[in-house]
Amino acid sequence: MANGYFVSGMSEGIAYFDYFFRRVPDDGGFAIMAGLEQLIDYLEGLSFDEGDIDFLRRKGGFDEGFLKYLSEMKFSCDVWSVPEGTPIFPYEPVITVRGPMIQAQFIETMLLLLINHQSLIATKANRIVRAAQGRAVMEFGTRRAHGGDAAVFGARSAYIGGCVGTACVESERLAGVESYGTMAHSWVQMFPTEYDAFKAYAGIYPDNCTLLVDTYNVLKSGIPNAIRVFKELGPPAMAVRIDSGDITYLTKNARAMLDEAGLPDCKIVVSNSLDEWIIRGVVQQGAEIDSFGVGERLICARSEPVFGGVYKLAGVESGGKISPKIKISENVEKITNPGFKSLYRLYDKDTRRAIADVITLDSEPAPSGDDYVIFDPSFTWKRKRLSNFVAVNLREQIFKDGKCVYERPAIDSIRDYCAEQVATLWDETLRFENPQSYYVDLSDELWRLRTSLIESYQRDILE
Amino acid sequence: MANGYFVSGMSEGIAYFDYFFRRVPDDGGFAIMAGLEQLIDYLEGLSFDEGDIDFLRRKGGFDEGFLKYLSEMKFSCDVWSVPEGTPIFPYEPVITVRGPMIQAQFIETMLLLLINHQSLIATKANRIVRAAQGRAVMEFGTRRAHGGDAAVFGARSAYIGGCVGTACVESERLAGVESYGTMAHSWVQMFPTEYDAFKAYAGIYPDNCTLLVDTYNVLKSGIPNAIRVFKELGPPAMAVRIDSGDITYLTKNARAMLDEAGLPDCKIVVSNSLDEWIIRGVVQQGAEIDSFGVGERLICARSEPVFGGVYKLAGVESGGKISPKIKISENVEKITNPGFKSLYRLYDKDTRRAIADVITLDSEPAPSGDDYVIFDPSFTWKRKRLSNFVAVNLREQIFKDGKCVYERPAIDSIRDYCAEQVATLWDETLRFENPQSYYVDLSDELWRLRTSLIESYQRDILE
Repeated sequence: MANGYFVSGMSEGIAYFDYFFRRVPDDGGFAIMAGLEQLIDYLEGLSFDEGDIDFLRRKGGFDEGFLKYLSEMKFSCDVWSVPEGTPIFPYEPVITVRGPMIQAQFIETMLLLLINHQSLIATKANRIVRAAQGRAVMEFGTRRAHGGDAAVFGARSAYIGGCVGTACVESERLAGVESYGTMAHSWVQMFPTEYDAFKAYAGIYPDNCTLLVDTYNVLKSGIPNAIRVFKELGPPAMAVRIDSGDITYLTKNARAMLDEAGLPDCKIVVSNSLDEWIIRGVVQQGAEIDSFGVGERLICARSEPVFGGVYKLAGVESGGKISPKIKISENVEKITNPGFKSLYRLYDKDTRRAIADVITLDSEPAPSGDDYVIFDPSFTWKRKRLSNFVAVNLREQIFKDGKCVYERPAIDSIRDYCAEQVATLWDETLRFENPQSYYVDLSDELWRLRTSLIESYQRDILE
Repeated sequence: MANGYFVSGMSEGIAYFDYFFRRVPDDGGFAIMAGLEQLIDYLEGLSFDEGDIDFLRRKGGFDEGFLKYLSEMKFSCDVWSVPEGTPIFPYEPVITVRGPMIQAQFIETMLLLLINHQSLIATKANRIVRAAQGRAVMEFGTRRAHGGDAAVFGARSAYIGGCVGTACVESERLAGVESYGTMAHSWVQMFPTEYDAFKAYAGIYPDNCTLLVDTYNVLKSGIPNAIRVFKELGPPAMAVRIDSGDITYLTKNARAMLDEAGLPDCKIVVSNSLDEWIIRGVVQQGAEIDSFGVGERLICARSEPVFGGVYKLAGVESGGKISPKIKISENVEKITNPGFKSLYRLYDKDTRRAIADVITLDSEPAPSGDDYVIFDPSFTWKRKRLSNFVAVNLREQIFKDGKCVYERPAIDSIRDYCAEQVATLWDETLRFENPQSYYVDLSDELWRLRTSLIESYQRDILE
């Protein structure tokens, strides 16, 4: 398509594209945005070297003028985005790209891939972390991730969503996520006895001494051997991990045995195909758990492994004038919001809770006043009058004329920001079952523009 | 754990690990092995440079002697594997690694990640390709893949499983998978009219002229405009793509309109959240489709995105003598097969169909004769006598003393081999609903070893 735009003499046209999604995975009430940092890296490194051009030339079908254009191409788009860690809702313009048609089109696939993947995992992680009700959740899924990037950046997204760390060491190096070592069953099997295996480990790792107690029999062998070693060596950071069996039964009994042995500070970690529903269940059953290790169901988002973000044309600009574009569909909810837009979150002045998000045309002033009216984009007879709010522009400019103008936050700040923002949502939006739809409405002006474009389209069809 | 083995003086011990899986995704009858080439790349490149060692030193917890060991480490394991594209079944030793404990343990995570991911996608692709009954299937899912590796190597696995190509250009460059361009709705929207957009595209890409006809209205606008352009420009490779709506209804009507316009050679391509069940359905309904573009449900294996391969200790070797290791579990099906093993596929001499797979100890001769008895590992009263077969050793040695001794096949050979091998399976194994379990049995000798280890474990527990 980029080659086609070039050959058609459209290389200089300016286009606006919006990234948005239509459905929250797992029928949840919101998603968590993630992947912006990797998108910035991608855009900053976007260029074609001789090897790239040679490959494309050999592949064939490309105009030589286009290949020259690519070899000299400098990314020159403007990009606006909500920061990573922000709760996001369907139909919101999470990211907008404005720039030369070829470039804005060219980056579509990588933008979608990066944001869809990381937002998927951050959203899932946040659900799992909320189910754990304050207990720590570790990311354990590298071995089932869909390739190396999925492991490293999946762990990063899981951290943004609220996990405390990962078992993927490479993710610490590449993405700054704290990583922790673990013991596998093979460690225990390599030694003559379970006791020998535990003793060796406690001697080497007294400060991270989590013993895997289910290689043979948790209550008859694993816990007694762990107690013996803990009493003999007294490592400062004692824990046992249970990776199979009935979690509630085993952890309650293990807790009793550890307490009776005078080891109330010994933590209990569980793993084994956990997700938010299983975690919520065992917590409700009173299982004695201090932290969870969550693998494949987090790193692959097993219950719904697709985040359906899309990237749609919203306008074209010529001579400084924006012509808004709309994509009409038989399905009302697939009709896009036209034009260059801004996204505001309105917080209640007193409670600081989020009341609604409002999408406006970028040229409009920020929502304000004590009688501000917003429109549901699908059910337009639904209007809402708002007062006593503070409006925050959710998006920041990330690139200006192709140059990154955004100061990248440290990953811990992103994680903190995510937790803070999730805390502004109502319980009705947070719950897993049939969460209340959060308001994402349009300004009066955007609503009128959209309506007029739909009507003019309908006139064309009827004629 | 590697550091722990080193500190415990176990660096020179030799271990055997098996990679195997326990359940076929989607309750299918078999899986397709993929990812070996990337595993070879990983193992050949396995070394630690100064930056790696510095990172680990800063991270802390590692013995200086171990860091020195790592910095000088040369991969020296033996590796056996079934070739990529082979149909594989639960509990089979698909890969065996033999070598210094530290190394054999160290590579676990990357081995699992690479083989689990690619086998997942190759297996899914093969299902989708079989559902299409000879119609071409293209991989279209990059934008929903779990990161860049998932896109590139997912497309590679999809190709091995039988897809004809991918829309991911990078996969052609990195993995040799043929890639094809596509038109998106934004192309159509960029032009004043749909007709203008089609005409421009047909002018530029006469040899791959697939027009996306559902931006406005398939039958009232898209197909008539495509017909007009095809008649005016007569591109050699005409096709229309439908990406929304009722596939059966639209393709039947589109076919009739194209035929009536004298364009019987114009192909019809469909896409839009397809998987093996939807494809089977529309084919049965008589939809007029020449090829399918399959995205998120293939690249993410949406219906079951986890391939549960594991890597388990099978033995340790000391002074040239192998001590087999077994992992006992309350769940019978989680008990492992001990020792260093071989894997044979027995084909009927007359029909060339696969009869059964047999796992033997590596020291045994290949299965032969006209009265060969095999044992079901879980239900050991189930025995089977086989005759009139040819036994093929399914595994090849890939690394010998750390050196790759395997001639890597070209990706097209892998794809052909996969199709040939799938053709040797019975329809009862191929079907989607309740496929017949294929026989994967143990040799008499392996069965006896396993039984004696279980019995000696039971004696230990009772004492």
